[in-house]
Amino acid sequence: MQYHVDGFHPGDPDVHPAVGAHRRAGDPMPQTVDVLIAGAGPAGLCLAAQLARVPQIRSLLVEPKLGPMEKGQADGISVRSMEMFQAFGFAEKVKREAVWINETTFWAPAPDAALARVARVQDVPDGTSEMPHVLINQARVHDMFLDLMRHAPTRLEPDYGLKLVDLRVDPGAAEYPVSVTLEHTAPGREGRTETLRANYVIGCDGARSNVRSAIGGALHGDAAHQAWGVIDLLAVTDFPDWRMKSFVRSQDEGILMVLPREGGHLVRLYVELDSLGEDERVADRGMGAADIIAKARRIFSPFELDVKEVVWWSIYEIGHRLTDKFDDVPADQVALRAPRVLLAGDACHTHSPKAGQGMNVSMGDTFNLGWKLVSVLTGRADPALLHSYSGERRAAAKGLVEFDHKWARVVGARAEQDPDEGLPRVAREFVANLPFTCGLTIQYEPSVLTGAATHQHLARGFEIGRRLHSAPVVRLADAKPMQLGHCIEADARFRLFVFAPKGDAGGRGGAVAALCDWLEHDPASPLRRHTAAGEDVDAVIDTRAVFQQGFRELDFGAMPTLLRPRVGRFGLCDYEKVFCADSGQGEDLFAARGIDRAAGCLVVVRPDQYVGHVLPLQGRDELAAYFAAILRLRG
Amino acid sequence: MQYHVDGFHPGDPDVHPAVGAHRRAGDPMPQTVDVLIAGAGPAGLCLAAQLARVPQIRSLLVEPKLGPMEKGQADGISVRSMEMFQAFGFAEKVKREAVWINETTFWAPAPDAALARVARVQDVPDGTSEMPHVLINQARVHDMFLDLMRHAPTRLEPDYGLKLVDLRVDPGAAEYPVSVTLEHTAPGREGRTETLRANYVIGCDGARSNVRSAIGGALHGDAAHQAWGVIDLLAVTDFPDWRMKSFVRSQDEGILMVLPREGGHLVRLYVELDSLGEDERVADRGMGAADIIAKARRIFSPFELDVKEVVWWSIYEIGHRLTDKFDDVPADQVALRAPRVLLAGDACHTHSPKAGQGMNVSMGDTFNLGWKLVSVLTGRADPALLHSYSGERRAAAKGLVEFDHKWARVVGARAEQDPDEGLPRVAREFVANLPFTCGLTIQYEPSVLTGAATHQHLARGFEIGRRLHSAPVVRLADAKPMQLGHCIEADARFRLFVFAPKGDAGGRGGAVAALCDWLEHDPASPLRRHTAAGEDVDAVIDTRAVFQQGFRELDFGAMPTLLRPRVGRFGLCDYEKVFCADSGQGEDLFAARGIDRAAGCLVVVRPDQYVGHVLPLQGRDELAAYFAAILRLRG
Repeated sequence: MQYHVDGFHPGDPDVHPAVGAHRRAGDPMPQTVDVLIAGAGPAGLCLAAQLARVPQIRSLLVEPKLGPMEKGQADGISVRSMEMFQAFGFAEKVKREAVWINETTFWAPAPDAALARVARVQDVPDGTSEMPHVLINQARVHDMFLDLMRHAPTRLEPDYGLKLVDLRVDPGAAEYPVSVTLEHTAPGREGRTETLRANYVIGCDGARSNVRSAIGGALHGDAAHQAWGVIDLLAVTDFPDWRMKSFVRSQDEGILMVLPREGGHLVRLYVELDSLGEDERVADRGMGAADIIAKARRIFSPFELDVKEVVWWSIYEIGHRLTDKFDDVPADQVALRAPRVLLAGDACHTHSPKAGQGMNVSMGDTFNLGWKLVSVLTGRADPALLHSYSGERRAAAKGLVEFDHKWARVVGARAEQDPDEGLPRVAREFVANLPFTCGLTIQYEPSVLTGAATHQHLARGFEIGRRLHSAPVVRLADAKPMQLGHCIEADARFRLFVFAPKGDAGGRGGAVAALCDWLEHDPASPLRRHTAAGEDVDAVIDTRAVFQQGFRELDFGAMPTLLRPRVGRFGLCDYEKVFCADSGQGEDLFAARGIDRAAGCLVVVRPDQYVGHVLPLQGRDELAAYFAAILRLRG
Repeated sequence: MQYHVDGFHPGDPDVHPAVGAHRRAGDPMPQTVDVLIAGAGPAGLCLAAQLARVPQIRSLLVEPKLGPMEKGQADGISVRSMEMFQAFGFAEKVKREAVWINETTFWAPAPDAALARVARVQDVPDGTSEMPHVLINQARVHDMFLDLMRHAPTRLEPDYGLKLVDLRVDPGAAEYPVSVTLEHTAPGREGRTETLRANYVIGCDGARSNVRSAIGGALHGDAAHQAWGVIDLLAVTDFPDWRMKSFVRSQDEGILMVLPREGGHLVRLYVELDSLGEDERVADRGMGAADIIAKARRIFSPFELDVKEVVWWSIYEIGHRLTDKFDDVPADQVALRAPRVLLAGDACHTHSPKAGQGMNVSMGDTFNLGWKLVSVLTGRADPALLHSYSGERRAAAKGLVEFDHKWARVVGARAEQDPDEGLPRVAREFVANLPFTCGLTIQYEPSVLTGAATHQHLARGFEIGRRLHSAPVVRLADAKPMQLGHCIEADARFRLFVFAPKGDAGGRGGAVAALCDWLEHDPASPLRRHTAAGEDVDAVIDTRAVFQQGFRELDFGAMPTLLRPRVGRFGLCDYEKVFCADSGQGEDLFAARGIDRAAGCLVVVRPDQYVGHVLPLQGRDELAAYFAAILRLRG
């Protein structure tokens, strides 16, 4: 964490000084806002937390519910989301408070027992990520984002009790083209409306999204005609794997999943209930918590289940649905105008909760969108950048819906263990799917934001289009062992990682120095072209270097000035730009991520932690071209 | 973290439900309190945070200053204190926010330069602790304890603007024998007094302690007649080790120490100023920040130092002082009465700040005292237990004062590098002193609380009288890799670690099962004798077991019931008592801590994380005797 750069401020460094005037929730509605976010779920809050950091962006977050969520709904946090939480600064807090899923077990009828553990699998394969897979009440994830917003310069708070009911886009209007109608939901104010105009509206308002309806979008897909129950409870049982993720398949009663939860006692069960008729809705059955528990007891038999407290429950039908486009611009008008209304989360894709992906993909949507909106609203990028959102995230959601479809069939299958295969089918599929459930299979297609794989061989482990796979390094200036990826914050900046060739110690005449001098001083450099006058040199593109030597073999004072820049009001030196790969334990980063030791390379990382490009250290023109296609000329 | 055991509670699990009626700071003074703490520095706050957890203890914390500290004073957090912070639950927060000291460098005149780096040393030797050595503003440590108090069941807050000016103990009074006079310090209220009576008064009121004076204590020791300046600043320099701890000795201008600080920019300097005459006081010189900076510039020459902001500074004289006794009971009356007034922190020991020990030893004082006070005030232990505080902590403070005396001479010495030795003398001494500066040399003498070393060979790495040196384990029920020591919370409970003999899997007929059955059921067991009716079986002595097998080789359901106890309002199972030593990486805990694999052993850990005893698994009588000497019969 870096702070005090503009002078010492007492108190918690996570609480930023407030900007002069900021609206409080409940104040009269503004007439105009830059961004209106409909819905304070994971998608809406993740976006709001990114926007709240930026003093010049005026945001409004409305939520029909009357206050923050307390329990229920999603609970799975993939390792990918944990990596994202690290960029927001609350991964450690979640690691402490959540339950870690380390092992998944599989139970089925066996020759000598009604239920036996037939397989067990390490839940997150070694080397996948520096982060664990955890489970925690969705409400606590909300709280983490709400804390960030509350402590951000704009002190953004949700306006509860307000529902977006309609909007209209005037494509001809240059300013605030979206007219929005909000309706109060609080007792005594129901039905009263507010109107305002926004530059952008983001629909994070769930599967029944009014934002989606207003722009003519529809969810397409199918349902499995199968009712499931989900229940959070405190119970006593002799089932031995009550604190591990477990799949339990009984002989005749169907299946359930055990998901241990935070705090050491709470457990969530997903329980297969009845098949539904073709035209039947799950609500028609009138089932309740007692039905879920009764079914769970039958599946668990002969193990006992003595429920002490039901915390939350729901009965749902599996559906897999997707909208055609995540914004308001039809395909044939993309060249003519930029999006003004965008959708995220359940508003544009729904699926079953059992793969534990819903909350993660929703936050992933707005982590993709956030930096793009910030870049546009701060004048760093042209609004056309927002077109990339629908393309990138619809592909990700499509992958999820297809996976979910397949996985629901595997989990629901009655297939017996195939003795030739070692593991039963569900366990085999589970293992094969781990990269997906970890949130690590998203690979954005080549585009303006995602370079071609021409030079991928220079850094095979930093795959273009995939998230940056962090690795250990030692920071030169203070010899701190840390993760390279943890220097990325959710601050809408690009990172340019310079991996030094063997023997290069940063001094004059070396490739790193030559590149850094060009980056810092040449008029053709993307740093010069896209950083505005008066901004710190790392304000838009943050350059960091990783050397192959140990920290005792390098001289910080001999580094190029770009790697020890003077920043902030006082022009203090930033000491945190230079790293050493040699971590003293096992293979170093160059080996672990397949970096060409002789040549070194450049790795561009997008603000959402995805690798944007891999280039040779001499690839100046390609580097300049990459950024020129994304960012405006401002230098 | 374990929570929800008595039912689901929404929100932050670190915010505990408040007990019915609790006093708010500023409310009228109570007439009586259980514990009055004078002084809200590290000693006072560390104690208050422990007491605040216990609903039935009524505490009052008074502080003459008018609000919480914002800057200045101490900043060093030893690895030992970080281990203690882990028990309080905020070590991860401090790790994120603080600067880590990883490397210490030494600069001195060299043949070819006025200043050259003549030595460098890894600051915390490998294997010392799972925690780093960090530096952070003392005010932030205060904030961490204040947060704990604010979120504890009693919602304890300091009463600022109140100074303890006098007290009187009536040894004959059974209830509230200490009469206390407090004086207001806030503008407009100065001089107004309040009186109340307390069962215990803890003087954490600094070097000029009124509590100490009132019980007739005096600080004895000497001064070095040497003025030093300390300054926290934001500056630009070409000194290369600005982000490492550095000792800098110039040819003619004396010495300084560089201590990088939290946030990546702030730095603290300790600068040697003038020698003082025998009867001269440092204040007489009228020196200020400009003098410290001017001297620092001369020492740093030829490196430049461009100061941008002075955050805090002080000029002090080194003194080493210690009181004879840390409580109000003279040595000849120990058998007659228990202490009612106790001293902690600077009230009973002062020393120079340069070894970075002051705040650590002060917190160590009240971490030693806290569980004893809680045990007495909750009826678990006889008040005579409090006698052990002065003995244990005075010895620790004496070690510190002696070390400080010696270290001040080493740092101040003009000795040149001895070329035969490789390292200059100050670096050699620094290395030799690392266990001390890490806070790990305290070894409590054999006593009621610290068993004899008769069976130390069963666990050579868990030294009786020293802090438990944690090691990695895997928790059986959820396969979570973690540190064994992290199951210790600052909750005044003893831990009984059962290390299983080879081959013992916890089942019937094994040594672990036999011991656990005896512990749980036998009338002679300390669990039966010292736990009150209605309390959970682990309420006073928390038994945990560590097995030699991997987690896939053990069956949780086959463990003795003591290791899967039913706890709380619902009788839910506690799944967090059983660990596996096999961490899958390198040597396991049994090897790392020298535990006799064939015999296994018992390790008793005191509530303050110090090893109380090491016993064979068959040492039932010795175990019962150990606890009988500390705790009351309550079973």
